[in-house]
Amino acid sequence: MKVTVVGLGVIGGSFVKALKGKGFEVYGIDSDVDTLEQAKEEGCIIDGFTDGVQIIPETDLTIICLYPSLVIDFIKKNHFKAGSIISDAVGIKSYFLNEVLQLLPDNVEYISVHPMAGREKKGYAYASKEVFKDANFIIIEHQKNKSESIKKMQYLASQLGFHSTKIMSPYDHDEIISYTSQLPHILAVALMNSDTQKYNTGKYIGDSFRDLTRIANINEDLWTELFLNNKKYLLSSIKNFKNQLDIMEKAISENDEEILKDRFRESSHRREHL
Amino acid sequence: MKVTVVGLGVIGGSFVKALKGKGFEVYGIDSDVDTLEQAKEEGCIIDGFTDGVQIIPETDLTIICLYPSLVIDFIKKNHFKAGSIISDAVGIKSYFLNEVLQLLPDNVEYISVHPMAGREKKGYAYASKEVFKDANFIIIEHQKNKSESIKKMQYLASQLGFHSTKIMSPYDHDEIISYTSQLPHILAVALMNSDTQKYNTGKYIGDSFRDLTRIANINEDLWTELFLNNKKYLLSSIKNFKNQLDIMEKAISENDEEILKDRFRESSHRREHL
Repeated sequence: MKVTVVGLGVIGGSFVKALKGKGFEVYGIDSDVDTLEQAKEEGCIIDGFTDGVQIIPETDLTIICLYPSLVIDFIKKNHFKAGSIISDAVGIKSYFLNEVLQLLPDNVEYISVHPMAGREKKGYAYASKEVFKDANFIIIEHQKNKSESIKKMQYLASQLGFHSTKIMSPYDHDEIISYTSQLPHILAVALMNSDTQKYNTGKYIGDSFRDLTRIANINEDLWTELFLNNKKYLLSSIKNFKNQLDIMEKAISENDEEILKDRFRESSHRREHL
Repeated sequence: MKVTVVGLGVIGGSFVKALKGKGFEVYGIDSDVDTLEQAKEEGCIIDGFTDGVQIIPETDLTIICLYPSLVIDFIKKNHFKAGSIISDAVGIKSYFLNEVLQLLPDNVEYISVHPMAGREKKGYAYASKEVFKDANFIIIEHQKNKSESIKKMQYLASQLGFHSTKIMSPYDHDEIISYTSQLPHILAVALMNSDTQKYNTGKYIGDSFRDLTRIANINEDLWTELFLNNKKYLLSSIKNFKNQLDIMEKAISENDEEILKDRFRESSHRREHL
């Protein structure tokens, strides 16, 4: 099977690195020729291209690892092989999938995926097959998908080294992701920005603060797009969070030990059973 | 200098492990004889005791690594050497220090410290000198402290392997800690408890969720005590956080890209310069 990964950044780069030696014919597309050269030298791709003109019409599985708006551009510009599968790794799915499905001809199949792994750092240099190890992989199924194609993507996930693969609708995906991925980013940003800066903060932090703010270093364009296009679910997740925060704030204010301890027992139990 | 560490849990255990081979005469007190035996076998303590009757009257520096209320009990029960220093590693300082200073005779000096390092897991088995490496150490200075005693504690911190040592008042300590340590714990608990549990959450998380909820597994008795005794500062830190969260919630609700991007640029800048 001929696989072309489009965009060899931290996710696309990790794809080609993880696919090395797994029996796929892997090609890469990137605007940066040095990156293509490096991936080729490392034996992660057979060949590299700066556009899809030559390789996409021959590709069985195209995985587009670009920003959401650039995925749309790439689909519009390229001619895909009949019977081939096209995929992406965009962080939200429902708004995006509606747009993509309208663009594509009937003789190709679109299966969006979400590899739940990433790094704060951008670029091929930070790509690594290790990020997929023990990580979760989500396959987004829609009405036009064939079960054999879904199976192909499940096989791909297992070959990439993912620990768990789940299949779900784009709506379910966007709902759960608003809680497990988007809300944590919002909280990290709010925590970082709520510093009064009265002290030299860096001298008074431990691992908990470091862990909770790691993702406060955030790609502003990408995440603004992801948040605004998942508004309904994200606002609901923020609301649920604020309810819990309010319960604790009130308990602290009223010296209510029992409510605090109850909330701590609950969170400890949930975290242990995650 | 004869140093006795009281309570060989994850922090006290890390103290004795980090002090090994640094030229101090180190003793340990713990209610668990197996822990004392293990620490002795590992060469981390010269000898171990289940109470302070014999060793405390001979000790130059007593470091009490127990829960806040147990620190008070230990001080009440023991007879300290004239001219010796007594310290603790309790997470908040002002309410605690007032109480302790009233208990102690004038011929001993109390210097509270806060090693900003820890683990979610409890007990000597999880203690390690590695947790202090590159970590922050805070020395709490009050009116009765002598500068030479403060210098002794600075030397101790450097020998323990801490990267940075800061000296501050108990009030300043409690204010900054309400933001850098207590608020992150509150947020982690609220995030964990705000799960609607509609999905099998563990299958849809990545490192960001794991990082932000690690400390949601929280010791309910200890942290309830720490939070309620630092109420004023903690409520203020929660308020500052909620202001930032509200700004983003409103921006998402109103599709205000500019405000979101501004908040993300600010948090990224702050996180990079931490």
